[in-house]
Amino acid sequence: MLKEVIENDIYPIALGAGILGTGGGGNPYLGSVHLREVIRTLGPQRILDPRELADDALVALVGFIGAPTASIEKLSEGTELLRALRLLEEHLECSFAAVGIIEIGGANAMGPLVAGLQAGLPTIDADGMGRAFPEVQMLTFVFQGNVSPAPFVMTDAGPGSVVVPHVANAVWAERLSRNIATSMGASAGWAGFVMRGAQFKAHAIPYTLSLAHALGKKVLEAQARGDDVPQTIAEQLSGRLILRGKITDVLRRTSRGFARGSVTIEGFGRSREQLFIEFQNEFLIAYLDGEVVATVPDLICIVTEETGEPVTTEVLHYGTRVAVLVVPAAAALKTPAALEVVGPRAFGYQVSYNPVPGNRIGCEELLSGEI
Amino acid sequence: MLKEVIENDIYPIALGAGILGTGGGGNPYLGSVHLREVIRTLGPQRILDPRELADDALVALVGFIGAPTASIEKLSEGTELLRALRLLEEHLECSFAAVGIIEIGGANAMGPLVAGLQAGLPTIDADGMGRAFPEVQMLTFVFQGNVSPAPFVMTDAGPGSVVVPHVANAVWAERLSRNIATSMGASAGWAGFVMRGAQFKAHAIPYTLSLAHALGKKVLEAQARGDDVPQTIAEQLSGRLILRGKITDVLRRTSRGFARGSVTIEGFGRSREQLFIEFQNEFLIAYLDGEVVATVPDLICIVTEETGEPVTTEVLHYGTRVAVLVVPAAAALKTPAALEVVGPRAFGYQVSYNPVPGNRIGCEELLSGEI
Repeated sequence: MLKEVIENDIYPIALGAGILGTGGGGNPYLGSVHLREVIRTLGPQRILDPRELADDALVALVGFIGAPTASIEKLSEGTELLRALRLLEEHLECSFAAVGIIEIGGANAMGPLVAGLQAGLPTIDADGMGRAFPEVQMLTFVFQGNVSPAPFVMTDAGPGSVVVPHVANAVWAERLSRNIATSMGASAGWAGFVMRGAQFKAHAIPYTLSLAHALGKKVLEAQARGDDVPQTIAEQLSGRLILRGKITDVLRRTSRGFARGSVTIEGFGRSREQLFIEFQNEFLIAYLDGEVVATVPDLICIVTEETGEPVTTEVLHYGTRVAVLVVPAAAALKTPAALEVVGPRAFGYQVSYNPVPGNRIGCEELLSGEI
Repeated sequence: MLKEVIENDIYPIALGAGILGTGGGGNPYLGSVHLREVIRTLGPQRILDPRELADDALVALVGFIGAPTASIEKLSEGTELLRALRLLEEHLECSFAAVGIIEIGGANAMGPLVAGLQAGLPTIDADGMGRAFPEVQMLTFVFQGNVSPAPFVMTDAGPGSVVVPHVANAVWAERLSRNIATSMGASAGWAGFVMRGAQFKAHAIPYTLSLAHALGKKVLEAQARGDDVPQTIAEQLSGRLILRGKITDVLRRTSRGFARGSVTIEGFGRSREQLFIEFQNEFLIAYLDGEVVATVPDLICIVTEETGEPVTTEVLHYGTRVAVLVVPAAAALKTPAALEVVGPRAFGYQVSYNPVPGNRIGCEELLSGEI
C-alpha cells in the first residue's frame, strides 16, 4: 500500500484515477500539475491506511464540485480545499485528524492530497465511491452509512465562501451545492461529511488511492513493454474491452453545473459497430448498436487506443482513437440500497442494472506483491 | 412617528408598504396575516426611532429573498427570519440590539417586525431602499455606505440553512443569494448587512415604516370619505397619476429566482392610451404609447382604481381596473453613484434616468401632525 506520495507517484495516480473516474472527477492533468507543485514545495504527502485511523479521529471529505468543462477554463486558485477545510473546522470549533477522498476520479483523487499537505494532515487511502459520480448523495457514506453531508463548506477562487450548517438530506445538499457551485463559476471547493474514524472505516471503499497508483504503474509498464495497454487495464480491473474505434461525434454542453452530453464511437472492425455513450460528468450508459451494454454503477472507461491514457468528458473530441472498457463496480455499489441512488434509474434511465460479468478484484488482492 | 405596532396598525402598514413596494417586496396580504398572528401571540412590536439607536449598537437587516410568484404558493414557515438572525448571531458570536428593514415594500416591510418580535428586539423605523428593489446590491448601505452584505445567512422553510462568511462584493452576494434562494424554492429568509448604529443612521432612509403607516391611514380615510383614493395617494407622495385603465395583458414567468414580465394597461379615456410596464419583481419602466414616461429609481405604483389598494406583480391579472402612479424616489437614490446601481441602465434599459417632476415629501414633513 502507498505510505506516502512523492513526485514520482503523481503520474501513475493521475493515470489510474483518470481511468477509475469514468470520464469525471475533474481533469487529471491539471490535478497532477497542481499536486506536483505542492509536493515540490512542501514535500511528500503522508497516506494513512484506513486500518490505522483511530475510531474517534475526526475526518472530513474534500473535493471539487461542478462541471469539468468549466474547471479546465476557469482554473482553481489552489487553496480552495484547504480554505474549505479550515472554515469547516472554524465553524465546528474542531480539528480534523485526516482528510478523506470523496471520489477516486481524476483531479478529485489528487485534491485531497493537496489539501492534506497544505493543512499538515494525512490523506486516507480510501474513498466514498470507488470511482467518480456526479452528485453529492452518491457516496457509500450516504446510502450505506447515513452520514450527513452537512455541515459543509464551499469556497470559490476568490474570497467567497459558504457554510451550510444544516440540510434536510443529501439530495437537498446536492441541489444547494450545485447552485452554489454554479454561482461560483461552475467549479468550487467542497468540504463536508464530517465523521469519526469508526464511521469512515465502516463505509469507505478502502485502498482506492493505492489501486489508482498500482493501475497507473501497470499502464506505464505496459507502455514501456509495448503491450496492448487497454487490454492490460481490462485485465487489471477484471473488466472487458467492448470496442476499439474512433470518436465520430461529441455533443457536450455545460448545463446547471454539470457537463452533460453524449459521445459516439465507431468501431474499427469491418462491421463498423456504433457505440453511443451518455454522460453527466461521468459516463452513465453505453449502447452498442442500440442495445444497452453497460450502465452505472459499473465503470465505463474511455482510454486512448494506443497508450491507454484516460479520455475524460471535457476532452472528448472528434477523431480520437479510443478503447472503451467496462469494469465491474465495487460490491458496495451493487446493494439494493446503493442501486436506488447510483443505479441507472437514479439517472433517469428506465432500464434495470445488468452487472457486467466478473467480479472486481479486491484492491488488496490487486495490490499484493505489486508495490 | 410610530412607537409601536399594534394589531390596528397592521392593515395601514400593509397598504402603505404595498404601494411603496412598486409591485415587489412580497405579497402584502400574506405578510399582514403573519404579522397579525405573531402580534396576537406576543403583543405589540417596539419601533425604534433611528435617532435613538446607539452609535455602537450592532444591527442586522432581514427580509425574504426570491420571487413573489413563488412565495404566494410556497408559504413561509414563519420563523425563517428569526432563525436567520439567530444563526448570524451564532456565527459572529454576537448579539444584535435591533433589527433593520431591507426594503419598505410589501411583506418585506412586515417580516422584520415579525422577526424582531420573535427575537425580543425592536425594529428600526428606516430601510435601505425607500421602496423595494429586486437585488442585494441595490441598498443605500451598499452604494452609499459601502457596507458588506456578508456575513449573511439564508434559511429555508425546512431545516436547511446557509451561512456565507465572505463574498467578493455585493453583486456576488446577489448572484449567490439568488441561486441559493432558487435551491430553497425561490423564496428564502435572509439576514445580513451587520453594522453599527452609526453606520446605519448615516445611510438608512429614515422613517419609512412610519411613512408606510401614515400613507395607509390616508388611504383608509379617503376610502371612508369616498374620495378619489388614487388621487389622494398621488398627493400624499408628491407623485402623479399617469393612467386609469384596465389590465389587458400580463406576461409573467418565474425565472432564475425572480418574477419577470410585463403588464399592459389600456386607458379608460377615448384615446385608449396603452401603458406598458416591465417588471423584475418590481415595476422597472413604463412606456405610454411607446414613449418612456417613468423608470427606476422613481416608483411606479399600480393600485386598484376604486379603492387604491396595491396591485403587486404576483397578483396582476387581466381585467383589473387600476390606476398607475409615478412617485419621485428618495433623494439618496438619485445620486450618480446610486443611479449606477438602481438607474434604468443597471437593469439593462439603454435610456437615461429622467426624474419625474416634483420632490418627494420628506417623511418627517409628511408625518408632522399626522399621527
